[in-house]
Amino acid sequence: MKAVQVVGYGENLRLTEVPAPEVTGPFDVVVRIGGAGVCRTDIHILEGQWAEKSGVTLPYTIGHENAGWVHAVGSAVSHVAEGDKVILHPLITCGLCRACRSGDDVHCAQSRFPGIDTHGGYAEYLKTSARSVVRIDDSLEPADVAALADAGLTAYHAAAKAARKLRPGDRCVVLGAGGLGHIGIQVLKALTAAELVVVDRNPEAVKLAGAIGADHGVVADGGHVDEVLALTGGDGAEVVLDFVGEGGATKDGVRMLRRAGDYHVVGYGENLDVPTIDIISAEINFIGNLVGSYTDLCELMALAARGLVRLHTAKYPLEGFQDALDDLEAGRIRGRAILTP
Amino acid sequence: MKAVQVVGYGENLRLTEVPAPEVTGPFDVVVRIGGAGVCRTDIHILEGQWAEKSGVTLPYTIGHENAGWVHAVGSAVSHVAEGDKVILHPLITCGLCRACRSGDDVHCAQSRFPGIDTHGGYAEYLKTSARSVVRIDDSLEPADVAALADAGLTAYHAAAKAARKLRPGDRCVVLGAGGLGHIGIQVLKALTAAELVVVDRNPEAVKLAGAIGADHGVVADGGHVDEVLALTGGDGAEVVLDFVGEGGATKDGVRMLRRAGDYHVVGYGENLDVPTIDIISAEINFIGNLVGSYTDLCELMALAARGLVRLHTAKYPLEGFQDALDDLEAGRIRGRAILTP
Amino acid sequence: MKAVQVVGYGENLRLTEVPAPEVTGPFDVVVRIGGAGVCRTDIHILEGQWAEKSGVTLPYTIGHENAGWVHAVGSAVSHVAEGDKVILHPLITCGLCRACRSGDDVHCAQSRFPGIDTHGGYAEYLKTSARSVVRIDDSLEPADVAALADAGLTAYHAAAKAARKLRPGDRCVVLGAGGLGHIGIQVLKALTAAELVVVDRNPEAVKLAGAIGADHGVVADGGHVDEVLALTGGDGAEVVLDFVGEGGATKDGVRMLRRAGDYHVVGYGENLDVPTIDIISAEINFIGNLVGSYTDLCELMALAARGLVRLHTAKYPLEGFQDALDDLEAGRIRGRAILTP
Amino acid sequence: MKAVQVVGYGENLRLTEVPAPEVTGPFDVVVRIGGAGVCRTDIHILEGQWAEKSGVTLPYTIGHENAGWVHAVGSAVSHVAEGDKVILHPLITCGLCRACRSGDDVHCAQSRFPGIDTHGGYAEYLKTSARSVVRIDDSLEPADVAALADAGLTAYHAAAKAARKLRPGDRCVVLGAGGLGHIGIQVLKALTAAELVVVDRNPEAVKLAGAIGADHGVVADGGHVDEVLALTGGDGAEVVLDFVGEGGATKDGVRMLRRAGDYHVVGYGENLDVPTIDIISAEINFIGNLVGSYTDLCELMALAARGLVRLHTAKYPLEGFQDALDDLEAGRIRGRAILTP
Repeated sequence: MKAVQVVGYGENLRLTEVPAPEVTGPFDVVVRIGGAGVCRTDIHILEGQWAEKSGVTLPYTIGHENAGWVHAVGSAVSHVAEGDKVILHPLITCGLCRACRSGDDVHCAQSRFPGIDTHGGYAEYLKTSARSVVRIDDSLEPADVAALADAGLTAYHAAAKAARKLRPGDRCVVLGAGGLGHIGIQVLKALTAAELVVVDRNPEAVKLAGAIGADHGVVADGGHVDEVLALTGGDGAEVVLDFVGEGGATKDGVRMLRRAGDYHVVGYGENLDVPTIDIISAEINFIGNLVGSYTDLCELMALAARGLVRLHTAKYPLEGFQDALDDLEAGRIRGRAILTP
Repeated sequence: MKAVQVVGYGENLRLTEVPAPEVTGPFDVVVRIGGAGVCRTDIHILEGQWAEKSGVTLPYTIGHENAGWVHAVGSAVSHVAEGDKVILHPLITCGLCRACRSGDDVHCAQSRFPGIDTHGGYAEYLKTSARSVVRIDDSLEPADVAALADAGLTAYHAAAKAARKLRPGDRCVVLGAGGLGHIGIQVLKALTAAELVVVDRNPEAVKLAGAIGADHGVVADGGHVDEVLALTGGDGAEVVLDFVGEGGATKDGVRMLRRAGDYHVVGYGENLDVPTIDIISAEINFIGNLVGSYTDLCELMALAARGLVRLHTAKYPLEGFQDALDDLEAGRIRGRAILTP
Repeated sequence: MKAVQVVGYGENLRLTEVPAPEVTGPFDVVVRIGGAGVCRTDIHILEGQWAEKSGVTLPYTIGHENAGWVHAVGSAVSHVAEGDKVILHPLITCGLCRACRSGDDVHCAQSRFPGIDTHGGYAEYLKTSARSVVRIDDSLEPADVAALADAGLTAYHAAAKAARKLRPGDRCVVLGAGGLGHIGIQVLKALTAAELVVVDRNPEAVKLAGAIGADHGVVADGGHVDEVLALTGGDGAEVVLDFVGEGGATKDGVRMLRRAGDYHVVGYGENLDVPTIDIISAEINFIGNLVGSYTDLCELMALAARGLVRLHTAKYPLEGFQDALDDLEAGRIRGRAILTP
Repeated sequence: MKAVQVVGYGENLRLTEVPAPEVTGPFDVVVRIGGAGVCRTDIHILEGQWAEKSGVTLPYTIGHENAGWVHAVGSAVSHVAEGDKVILHPLITCGLCRACRSGDDVHCAQSRFPGIDTHGGYAEYLKTSARSVVRIDDSLEPADVAALADAGLTAYHAAAKAARKLRPGDRCVVLGAGGLGHIGIQVLKALTAAELVVVDRNPEAVKLAGAIGADHGVVADGGHVDEVLALTGGDGAEVVLDFVGEGGATKDGVRMLRRAGDYHVVGYGENLDVPTIDIISAEINFIGNLVGSYTDLCELMALAARGLVRLHTAKYPLEGFQDALDDLEAGRIRGRAILTP
């Protein structure tokens, strides 16, 4: 089969012919790829930023946001069958460790990560585990939802966790209306009746946020903290969801938070640096957010099937991988680039 | 001032002139009534059904669903001021008992209930406590929201509690699309992305449910349990919200419930009668629901201010109280009858 | 190997020689049995009460409360190794269905139940799945904890769930201080500071309850509801944990429950039959309880390792199975009978 | 009556004669002081550190940890009566704002703080509100529990919040076994079965921690992070409860935290300074903790009544206030100094 592989750091990806994967164990699932998201992380992998951390042996097939059709299943696989449309959870988890047993599989003690430390989805077929495949609704197309498998899942996880605290009348500030923020806003809209205040440096992103459900848009131009405080009666918001995490976002964001509020850290880059006296006197919380669990992905797909979460995509054939990466790097893509083998 | 009073059980209400209430304590609030809901409970009071339970001394002013404008406040009242539009929580609570202190004021150890055991809102003015008044948004009119103060608050309380368990992809069955069910459906729609299956004997009510957000409507004509099971993949729903509670509703409803599901009891009349072996082998829960708390009412008003909960009302002048009661009893009212003094 | 099998309903069990089980799949685990609990359910199986429900083919090896040492593991088993001491969760679950993925494996869509519908632990060896074995502390002996695998796990599950609601100053009524109640009391003692009121018909059981942590013991002799109400200031308890579920226990128990309280159904037999008006006006909840999950069993073993949960046992060699059953039926066993192959 | 007052910053307190307070409003309560805790905050007040923040007018009576007997009550006070033993919540809260109405009165929008911004308890009598008095068990003496009113309440609040996450088998690290840590350990012991690892610079404090329930004691001498990691299987603890918050405690503490763990900030002084990449990749949370609510104080008193939380005290007559302060400053007090007017 055709596969796009990392052959060396600092080198371009290469389209090559490799043996198609086969089912060998009872829980194996081979998926025919229908869509593979092209992500900024892929560019970082090529730059070698993940080389040491992943420990992957070159060459290997890249691509960690995958969806498609079940091609073959092992003897113990009971929840999907050949021909089913599926999206793939980004991790292959063990199912035996304490985290897996309590439904918190993201913290699996020995997970693998296709596209990062083992073969991924820039290919015609991908072999994964029964524990990673989520059946999707007939109304959804793999290429349309593939990009929700990782970035979208992270946004869902944080927004759904935040939503559990939000009651009608509460305010939620979303910092950053880019890729993740865009999904996060739609999720909050679907799961809460809280007032959504969206902050972004880019006036276009703020405008788009309004179109998908934000109640108030604030351009981060220096007066944004005061503007948010004015919108929240001077008290700040019950929840801040920070999809930025750099460039001073956390300092600003903490000032927008109400007493007893939750600050969700999703974006990263800078240090969170807050006086402990401020943490205790306002009794605020900082909540970390990693990618979502398998059940989070099921829930996100339920929202997608109801049309409550949508994503704009630009599709490329598998052979067009270099164009997709070039367009991504040049900022020419609206939404997400998807390879459709 | 004018007031409509209960002068004897089995007798008609009487419009009479009584002294207007005045502020005497620091936490007193006198409200000029803008709307007083006419409720089936009022008819039951006149029939004497509440006489023993309430222990009220006749004559007294009836009316337990009230909204209006703040007319005067005691010296310690800090959260509302003269002229504010307010809705009244149905209970006057002590603020000192364990229930009140933990935010669960509905279980106050010594609450009073205006319109039931003390003077209510079929009048020009009503005296209540600072703890009972909720300021409402400028966009709302007292007469439009008054009926949310008790029946609507009960529906909100149950639906919001149920919503905490519902995740995208889950199903929620609503039994009964009458007054409470109508509000419950709108609340579920605002707070969850769960699929809503609404069951009612009345095809018109089922149709209306579809117009306000139900995903599936089922007419309770004998095949309804099977129909709901078919709509939930044979497994039943994660949550059943029973606004009926009589005429065999609970027997049917339990059959619609999925393993590990929650059955919310809101309507009442018959006994809940379930084999304990079924409760433990399916590990299902039965959740009681009384009227909502003060914070529930604040949240419901936030939904109303966002246009997410609406109610159809038929308005009558205070003097038209008998027409309102007659129309209610004759089934001539769509939505709720409201007296507007 | 030696195994004790059901050869016909209405007949005695038979000790026979069968092939020892072997690892054939990657997640298989073969356990050398160290202790197998003898349970009243075993007698019911022999009477044929489970024949239709389980659909098991005779002959098969009985025994559903098992612990021992890992004898052999499949290639994918990573969390236990040969020689480890383990206790076995009563169910073999799929790990793929929605319930399994959310940590609620007891509701697995396709579980098997060794000793009930497949070979159990009245034998030298038992083959199970990696998903069923819990490693236990070196300080514990398989024969001492085996009986916690099912009955104890049910009690733990209910008591731990109840404990999440109990705060210092709250009261918890435990109905029934027999096998399950005995474990439940120890669990409540370990996990809460609530006041424990234990009710049983047997004065000896009440006395024993006091020795393991009950704050008040009440003999159920007719005046017990009033006695419990007196002990709870007339209001009833925040939680009632009903390990009886028959003989009128639920009627009595509901009267002991405070407003907004939780009634945990664990024992079964009679119907729960309560007016819906009582459920809503006191806003009480009825919570079903099945056996515990895999993580519940891990937690129970952590309590056992700390000496916080203990069980009295009477040990018999495998060949003495008939004596154990006879002693059980004759009421000659204090605590639990255990076969030690 | 006699009262000890702040007459100037940088000056000694002065014992003086002032009019005894009287009931004037319906919710007033006058308490005859039985014990007033002498706290390091009192020294800071005298140094002027609180002058600007509190805005209090001199002279005023100091003392913010108070317990005693009810001397007189206003007409609306229903939950305590003359002669009752009571402890005083440190705040006088409004009962009307959103925080108060949801049971979270610590975040009251307009609270007062006796001993800080209004007259406190270094006196024979103190006037407070019905909302601040908690009736205590007959077995407790005001002078013995007074010091639990503020410092103890803070420790209870944090430990009880932390306990909600801890399951049997989990580990909880307590940083700091001084005044607050000492209470926190006892609370954790009463509410959880988690393993407690206590870390302190002072070997005597570590030893004492062992005597009141710590499972492991670690002296913070440089190797303590590694020692804690070794005690938690290399993974870190599910919860870290930081009663220190200065001198590098937070940097050390974060390294002791397991993936998905909760870090409770209670002590303060330094900045919490953590890379956002670490927060999201380990998905850890930082939880702020202020003093406890009124219901927290009720719960703490329930623990005290059961003998589960004890405090060593050194008692002084009211006239001995200067000795108490001198002994506190000189480090001559074991436990807490209490004035007993």
